[in-house]
Amino acid sequence: MIVWHQGALRPVEATRIDPTDRGLALADGLFETMKARDGRILRLERHWLRLAEGAKLLGIPLPLDETGLAAAARELLLANGFARGEAALRLTLTRGPAPRGLLPPERPTPTVLLTAFPLPEAPPPARAVLVKSVRRNEHSPTSRIKSLAYLDQILALREAIAAGGDEALLCNTAGRLACASAANLFLVVDGRIWTPAPSEGALPGVTRAVLLERARARGLLVVEAELPRHLLARAQEAFTTNALSGLRPIASVDGFAFPEPCPGPITRRLAELLEAE
Amino acid sequence: MIVWHQGALRPVEATRIDPTDRGLALADGLFETMKARDGRILRLERHWLRLAEGAKLLGIPLPLDETGLAAAARELLLANGFARGEAALRLTLTRGPAPRGLLPPERPTPTVLLTAFPLPEAPPPARAVLVKSVRRNEHSPTSRIKSLAYLDQILALREAIAAGGDEALLCNTAGRLACASAANLFLVVDGRIWTPAPSEGALPGVTRAVLLERARARGLLVVEAELPRHLLARAQEAFTTNALSGLRPIASVDGFAFPEPCPGPITRRLAELLEAE
Repeated sequence: MIVWHQGALRPVEATRIDPTDRGLALADGLFETMKARDGRILRLERHWLRLAEGAKLLGIPLPLDETGLAAAARELLLANGFARGEAALRLTLTRGPAPRGLLPPERPTPTVLLTAFPLPEAPPPARAVLVKSVRRNEHSPTSRIKSLAYLDQILALREAIAAGGDEALLCNTAGRLACASAANLFLVVDGRIWTPAPSEGALPGVTRAVLLERARARGLLVVEAELPRHLLARAQEAFTTNALSGLRPIASVDGFAFPEPCPGPITRRLAELLEAE
Repeated sequence: MIVWHQGALRPVEATRIDPTDRGLALADGLFETMKARDGRILRLERHWLRLAEGAKLLGIPLPLDETGLAAAARELLLANGFARGEAALRLTLTRGPAPRGLLPPERPTPTVLLTAFPLPEAPPPARAVLVKSVRRNEHSPTSRIKSLAYLDQILALREAIAAGGDEALLCNTAGRLACASAANLFLVVDGRIWTPAPSEGALPGVTRAVLLERARARGLLVVEAELPRHLLARAQEAFTTNALSGLRPIASVDGFAFPEPCPGPITRRLAELLEAE
């Protein structure tokens, strides 16, 4: 595997992250997971905007621009044999190496790492588990940026798997629905489509945003709101979205299937809307 | 600087963290910050127990034991000129390199990194700020382990500094007092000593535990409890504790000084208790 690190392409074995990097020491950084096709990042502008907003919140200077990222991705995809077809990319941005302590250095030298992977196969419909051990913190601005601090999501997924599922649904600290382990959550209730608002601890997902726009443009009612847990029991369909898997239907929650066949009619229609160029 | 990494001593410039390390990618790991004296880790057994509990929660196998850590620390301190006198140590444990994705590998190869630093000078009494932008998530088990996911604490400290202070006090999601940026919080109210309970989102600090034990052994009343924010206004004294700074008096919160001179009489007595061997 060849990776792009600080402006250069190198085999991963020859690429060194400094042991004092604040990304490693304190999760002081951000990432983006992106889909690429024929050497190009899909929805690059949206991913870039979200990264830039996160970097602004954290006070991390961006050492490249959107055009630079596109060029790096092109080189990296070519070097890894992904010049044609689909692939996955991960961009990691950290505040870089620094002396010990919480206080960020005044003049950081950020780390930028771009890696490419085969696009994972489309997963089967999710057997979701509403997890109990951990809640999403809607009282932190880090719930609305794609930060490196993903440990809560890992714990949630581990709980779901231990309970026999393959995806986790998280409530926020108020006990309302927030998100899936690494995806946004949508419910279909009596023909309306509901999704937790970012103020509820939902990451403003890129695929989520595209879905909201396209659905609304077709006159489908999609509401960003506070969703009580018991709405799960009233839903006819449910699904998640993220950049790599696109739309993934949810077959069941805690072993209970939704009334509609999976994927249900509205889920199928939204999946088609998403897949259209 | 010489670091100890995967069992070997090496200059930091020659030490390579893999770009796919889950500690960097997802904050999937733990750390301990410890004080050393004359080549030995102080309160090693307590630090080790906390690390082991965190590793158990995360399902990360421990690739060394307490004796191994003591030996590694001795070698490292010697190599960095800290064989005599005091120094600071940081142990970082991650789930190690892995393919992309949230799901932990079944057989991880954990990363263990031990670094040594000069002991920071004792900071002046804190000018604390009760931060508004971020709250501690007491609904996550990661609030009770020393995980790598420290970004919320960084944001809190940045807010405190922007407001003219030098330390942050965080509330939990219920709006009650939880902790300082990288330290436990104590208030003295009418002769009683109060500290947020771990169920409130307070990390079970090693220095905190020693203080609780020693104070109680002298008949001083120390209560772990739910502390409403307004208790700050009723406190005569306040201080924080952590492994490196020991006990640090708080001079003021949001610009308001406490009624007792700083450090107050009970704070001074507890500092003496802590310093005794």
